[in-house]
Amino acid sequence: MYKSAVVTIGNEILLGTTLNTNLAWLARELSAIGLPVEFSLTVKDEPEAIFQALKQAWETCDVVITTGGLGPTEDDITKNSIASFFGAELVFEPEIWEEIQKMFAFRKMKVPECNRCQAMVPTHFKALKNERGTAPGLFFEDGSKSFFAFAGVPLEMKHVFENQAKPLLLEKYGNSNQVWQYTLHTFGVSESALAELLADFPKPGGIDLAWLPQTGRVDLRFYGLAKNAVEETANRCNALIENYVWGKNEDTPAQVLLNILQEQGLQLSVAESCTGGLAQKMITDVPGASEYFLGGVVSYSNSLKQSLLDVNPKTLLEQGAVSEQCAQEMALGIKNLTKSHVGISVTGVAGPDGGTREKPVGTVCFGFSDLQGTWSITHAFNGDRESIRFKAAEFVILTLIKHLRRTIA
Amino acid sequence: MYKSAVVTIGNEILLGTTLNTNLAWLARELSAIGLPVEFSLTVKDEPEAIFQALKQAWETCDVVITTGGLGPTEDDITKNSIASFFGAELVFEPEIWEEIQKMFAFRKMKVPECNRCQAMVPTHFKALKNERGTAPGLFFEDGSKSFFAFAGVPLEMKHVFENQAKPLLLEKYGNSNQVWQYTLHTFGVSESALAELLADFPKPGGIDLAWLPQTGRVDLRFYGLAKNAVEETANRCNALIENYVWGKNEDTPAQVLLNILQEQGLQLSVAESCTGGLAQKMITDVPGASEYFLGGVVSYSNSLKQSLLDVNPKTLLEQGAVSEQCAQEMALGIKNLTKSHVGISVTGVAGPDGGTREKPVGTVCFGFSDLQGTWSITHAFNGDRESIRFKAAEFVILTLIKHLRRTIA
Repeated sequence: MYKSAVVTIGNEILLGTTLNTNLAWLARELSAIGLPVEFSLTVKDEPEAIFQALKQAWETCDVVITTGGLGPTEDDITKNSIASFFGAELVFEPEIWEEIQKMFAFRKMKVPECNRCQAMVPTHFKALKNERGTAPGLFFEDGSKSFFAFAGVPLEMKHVFENQAKPLLLEKYGNSNQVWQYTLHTFGVSESALAELLADFPKPGGIDLAWLPQTGRVDLRFYGLAKNAVEETANRCNALIENYVWGKNEDTPAQVLLNILQEQGLQLSVAESCTGGLAQKMITDVPGASEYFLGGVVSYSNSLKQSLLDVNPKTLLEQGAVSEQCAQEMALGIKNLTKSHVGISVTGVAGPDGGTREKPVGTVCFGFSDLQGTWSITHAFNGDRESIRFKAAEFVILTLIKHLRRTIA
Repeated sequence: MYKSAVVTIGNEILLGTTLNTNLAWLARELSAIGLPVEFSLTVKDEPEAIFQALKQAWETCDVVITTGGLGPTEDDITKNSIASFFGAELVFEPEIWEEIQKMFAFRKMKVPECNRCQAMVPTHFKALKNERGTAPGLFFEDGSKSFFAFAGVPLEMKHVFENQAKPLLLEKYGNSNQVWQYTLHTFGVSESALAELLADFPKPGGIDLAWLPQTGRVDLRFYGLAKNAVEETANRCNALIENYVWGKNEDTPAQVLLNILQEQGLQLSVAESCTGGLAQKMITDVPGASEYFLGGVVSYSNSLKQSLLDVNPKTLLEQGAVSEQCAQEMALGIKNLTKSHVGISVTGVAGPDGGTREKPVGTVCFGFSDLQGTWSITHAFNGDRESIRFKAAEFVILTLIKHLRRTIA
């Protein structure tokens, strides 16, 4: 079985000012193609530290990947350390320099001279095209071993890995040790209640189950080397807890919702208060959302709730903006204003201030209005402002999914 | 200068299913008390891997901290590896067992037998009380060196570090080596152009500068042991590049914008198309935004651009929704609709589809309308849909900051 190592280079990670999200992403990608990460090292932007880390990783693993330290300002150190470790010279490659110049021209900017260093490539290395930034990836192989260096910006690293490194790795190492995964996304049930439902669920040997609590919901991931057994086990599990499963694998709440709207030929609009645009942002994360999502209103002030959404001033006065009555009027109001088939709304106390004894921080009211009528629910979320807003935005989407699915059945 | 190392133990980190947030948190805490992290290692829940990692860290650093591997199910491996590395025996400590039993009794639960192992402590080690869970921390010292082991659950790790480990570290090492930081956030200038501007910038000895590229902008972080010198250097740098600096340290674009709106007594509203609500979400990330942010519209469909924002159908027909004319009409429209002082708008091609030769994916038009008039700009972003949307939402906020600051001057 092949082994890989990830070396993260960057003072900012060791100062704690940047979270190492690259490691988690690379670890998932590498596991999935049968090159699980054996260990990971994080070191400073210092030649000796980089050299020693490369030594340790290269001596023990088949595939070594570094991230960070390839920007135009810190480039020299990392690239020199890499070249020195592999006994290579740095050579200027005019083609890369041309690509960098084109990129700046597209942005109508002058190319600063210090970017020249990004066109330097160690001898015997291959430069990997980076269409998302100016630092190309680097690739070197020695017999059965492979070395890759990527820029630290996650967007650029992911782009170069997916488009350049992954095909090279699949060709060289095959994917016979590929770990297959099948994820069920659940909603509206606690982890422990789910565990009780699945207490006697029989899992064949070689299939593992990971419980992955997400913010406000739980994912179940089955994984193993036998693709069919993984799928079959996940499907059996799905049949047991079907009412709680809203999606599978790469599904997102917004994508699933848009699929249902498409199936049912419905157009949606949204009125948000405490989530401030987040629910609509999630829906429009999906390319092509515009066919079934018309748009909506962020009625952050009470005046907009009245003037745009036709919320009754009496409702605001007597029951407050955070009330089921207000949520219903907002949902009906946005449906009428935009002439959509379905209107939904979110209004709540996201905190940290604004909570009362009756409506503490985390209280959120949701409104739903469609051809069948208008209704509402209230839910209490815990956590800080950010997580309350995130959970509330997902909640309104997931609840609408549940509602629309029942409508078909 | 003292040095520390963090060893993370856990298969889930190397599978990529868990993000290593413990490292970033510990790194900040340790830097702040003068024990900066020299390097960090992440290894599997395997005795030999743990042993080797402890060896590498203990040989080179003054303070070694491990996280993970102390739960009731995986406890034996880690604790045995630690004991074996330090040549200790595991001894049952009845007092800890009593604490664990009390904790379960409080939750009205039976103590599973596997929790007994959590009362085992290596000889010469001190158990550190964990009031958030069942796995106590472990502490060992040898001359000037200190070793700590914490459970991997962030809540428990932080609790034991803050209440038990930090006081011990401060007493033993003092905090005369505290690292001070000062960050300048820039916008509208590339990393390499900034590097040219600062090519001759004199940095006193002992002050380091980290270049931190964010998505679409760059942060400069000065750090060192002398608080005054760090601040003074950052301020001198700020004076040189003032036109590009939008904030300092913990500032966010939305917070800075809201402060300016407050200073100038202005109320804002927003019309978004391609960003789908993200700009408004960012603004409302700030508690108390409602005083200066009224709300806005997500006019995802052309029909809403016309009916709510009063965009001229001729504009849409002749110049398209992604045009400076449309952006200006949207900004003016949302200002009028909401009776705000300032209206801003975003309309563009976020991709992956919808690009043309004239308006490729990444083309975004921004509109601004206030008492002085209505104007617009166009910017070309690269990246995928997610990053184009993110950069565009930050861009409209940061551009408004620049505009409003000039207005005062």
